[in-house]
Amino acid sequence: MTRKIRLGAFLPGGGQHIAAWRHPDQPADGATSFDFHLKLAQEAERGLFDAYFLADGLAIAFGGSIEGGNAKVAGFEPVILFSALAPLTRNLGFIATASTTYEEPYNLARKFASLDLISDGRTGWNVVTTATESAAHNFSLDHQHPHAWRYRRAAEFVDVVKKLWDSFEDDAFIRDKETGVFFDVDKVHFTDHQGEHFKVRGPLNVSRSAQGHPVIVQAGQSEDGRGLAAATAEVIFTAHQRLDTAQEFYRDIKARARGLGRNPDHILIMPGVSPFVGRTEAEAREKYERLTSLILEEDGIALIKGLTGGTLDLTGADLDGPLPPLDPTEGMKSRQTLIRQIADENGFTIRQLYQWIASARGHFTIVGSARQVADTLQEWFENEGADGFNILPPWLPTGLTDFVDLVIPELQRRGLFRTEYEGRTLRENLGLPFPENRWTVQRRSVHAAE
Amino acid sequence: MTRKIRLGAFLPGGGQHIAAWRHPDQPADGATSFDFHLKLAQEAERGLFDAYFLADGLAIAFGGSIEGGNAKVAGFEPVILFSALAPLTRNLGFIATASTTYEEPYNLARKFASLDLISDGRTGWNVVTTATESAAHNFSLDHQHPHAWRYRRAAEFVDVVKKLWDSFEDDAFIRDKETGVFFDVDKVHFTDHQGEHFKVRGPLNVSRSAQGHPVIVQAGQSEDGRGLAAATAEVIFTAHQRLDTAQEFYRDIKARARGLGRNPDHILIMPGVSPFVGRTEAEAREKYERLTSLILEEDGIALIKGLTGGTLDLTGADLDGPLPPLDPTEGMKSRQTLIRQIADENGFTIRQLYQWIASARGHFTIVGSARQVADTLQEWFENEGADGFNILPPWLPTGLTDFVDLVIPELQRRGLFRTEYEGRTLRENLGLPFPENRWTVQRRSVHAAE
Repeated sequence: MTRKIRLGAFLPGGGQHIAAWRHPDQPADGATSFDFHLKLAQEAERGLFDAYFLADGLAIAFGGSIEGGNAKVAGFEPVILFSALAPLTRNLGFIATASTTYEEPYNLARKFASLDLISDGRTGWNVVTTATESAAHNFSLDHQHPHAWRYRRAAEFVDVVKKLWDSFEDDAFIRDKETGVFFDVDKVHFTDHQGEHFKVRGPLNVSRSAQGHPVIVQAGQSEDGRGLAAATAEVIFTAHQRLDTAQEFYRDIKARARGLGRNPDHILIMPGVSPFVGRTEAEAREKYERLTSLILEEDGIALIKGLTGGTLDLTGADLDGPLPPLDPTEGMKSRQTLIRQIADENGFTIRQLYQWIASARGHFTIVGSARQVADTLQEWFENEGADGFNILPPWLPTGLTDFVDLVIPELQRRGLFRTEYEGRTLRENLGLPFPENRWTVQRRSVHAAE
Repeated sequence: MTRKIRLGAFLPGGGQHIAAWRHPDQPADGATSFDFHLKLAQEAERGLFDAYFLADGLAIAFGGSIEGGNAKVAGFEPVILFSALAPLTRNLGFIATASTTYEEPYNLARKFASLDLISDGRTGWNVVTTATESAAHNFSLDHQHPHAWRYRRAAEFVDVVKKLWDSFEDDAFIRDKETGVFFDVDKVHFTDHQGEHFKVRGPLNVSRSAQGHPVIVQAGQSEDGRGLAAATAEVIFTAHQRLDTAQEFYRDIKARARGLGRNPDHILIMPGVSPFVGRTEAEAREKYERLTSLILEEDGIALIKGLTGGTLDLTGADLDGPLPPLDPTEGMKSRQTLIRQIADENGFTIRQLYQWIASARGHFTIVGSARQVADTLQEWFENEGADGFNILPPWLPTGLTDFVDLVIPELQRRGLFRTEYEGRTLRENLGLPFPENRWTVQRRSVHAAE
């Protein structure tokens, strides 16, 4: 089978670009409209996307104060939203972000397993450690836990969740009305986990889905993040501005995975891409300029503050001067480094910086014709830069519609993208293996040894 | 407006009665079938029920061991399930159970607020403290917290959640594309809660719904439980075998609420009722006997164990002898007392006891014609026993269909039940007031004082 590009769609209802909500096409109340999210899901499914992807935060963005321009101030909890969308779609996957720092493994395992059952195996969990002070303040903490602590907890958390997901073997249910035997007690398993952070007995009270369990997704870029991703992730969401850094990341993760005994083809690396697509390059450029012109200065300043750790206050600074030095952070270390790098490598002023990151927050922005966009995706895909991409349409729904109507057919013509869904589960569509239940595997090996 | 009976429907997909899944009408895989839950929701909506109600547990039921006959061993997390059902229904409310002991206020506030937005104001939260040792073992505890501690935490938890739900005033969103003002910063509020158990800064990142916020539901029967219910609940789910104890409870709660300055009409008391309905009493009796005959002895023993605190092992006991004394429990104190009372007052053997509670677990079981069932409901409703009922059909879907086709028309003929939904939100249908945002109220009183 030829290798195909995998595509996720980042579709926050309020749009990705900081000024998206001011665009004439974008419903200003999109972030809090269920009907609009449904429309987006149906559009992504029309485009044969693998999955609808949602980021998440456990606080109103941008640190300690409430700022007036932020259109992402309110929305839906992603797993709840996806549960409502699942029965109204057939093939689209749903990758929801959830935190290992501010949830309990039992509750998280349960909500994802429930969504995975309802969607008939179309769910993924994007594992994050949640790196903002403002989130800590919503969970009875004065300050967030250190970066390394969060990653240790995350590794243990994922381990517990995966154990819980294996509570029921796939043939555990007998449901024999005649004898009254509902399930085979030998095929339901205690978790009996004891570790640094958690003691969880199990079993989980949800059974496995058509795809075994949700796909594990991650986005860590730091050393800790890469280690966790190589060990546990099946899909990695990553941010790169250039092919060479994407390649460094791609090769590093695949090598780490190989070193851990994993098949590197079972870790899909999907950089984020924010496309402004036109029928011509000029048309695409026009779309970019139009959105850029809608950014308010104070929103640009707040964006930089939010992406660099929440302490940098540029109010009153010369926006046509360079970005000042940044404080070290316990927060989003790698995102801060990336923002610094974008500013320095491009020689951006503060204003140019926020205009550039306003769309994709550090992800790769492509402005061009469908052919130009497809050229870039193909180049990354064929040169160890990517197994697929997370598409971040700058505004909605037309940013998505442009991609579906212009870029998807171009990728299909080149044989790089599916023309229909291959399977019914997210794993089947992504080409990821079905994870056999650990207890079933153990039982088989015991039998073989006898 | 004439006072009407309010009706909730308890519809666990596997059926309420312990042997329900063995009934020919009941899909044996109902507990894990989304399609079956959808069918039940649509049937409840056809019957003009106020709400679909789901209980919840954070462990596989029945204490420390896994027992083979329990058909409730696996299912869906209720808020996730209801999110999937909400867009596929129009008027039915959804009351989901969630724990104040094993969740965080920010996460819980968020998931319910999200469902309340998606359902356009049709959500309720049944507040429970979760009283099983087995749940504690899934959340890094060796033993559950004491009863009184759980109730103190619950009271503070509900307070925090309600504050979080008021983060956005109802007119906080401006969304002016021209000026770029998305919301009015003066109408978004920090929570700034500091208490014994929680420190939560807020604001929540979800806005209010068409009904303000979810309806608060409770089921506590103990002294602590009654206090919490009288102070915070808008709907109370309760278990009584006789009108006189129902009246004692009803009058006590209404008096406590009045004492706390609340309008007692804004606390609806809804005892649970498990109806076996026939066109004649003989037909109803036949339905009861049929289900009873399907109970396995070991399942009956496990049921008593589960309902009395998880420590009573009757394996090998004489099932045709009396119930032995019970150990004190930190768990479901009032449920344990009720089971003891049922056994003693009826002079039940162990077998008779589990046969009687197999259907409703201590709630009131009525076996009779539609007219007889309606007579009983009317008697309780008109004599300070109830403002409505939670109907627990013993098996599904026909146990529900019987009620919808036989009892609902009888209640309608008597003018005791609606013939169409009065409103679009759960509050409107229940006749509960819209909770104004506390900050809006404060603003108005400041203005008035100026």
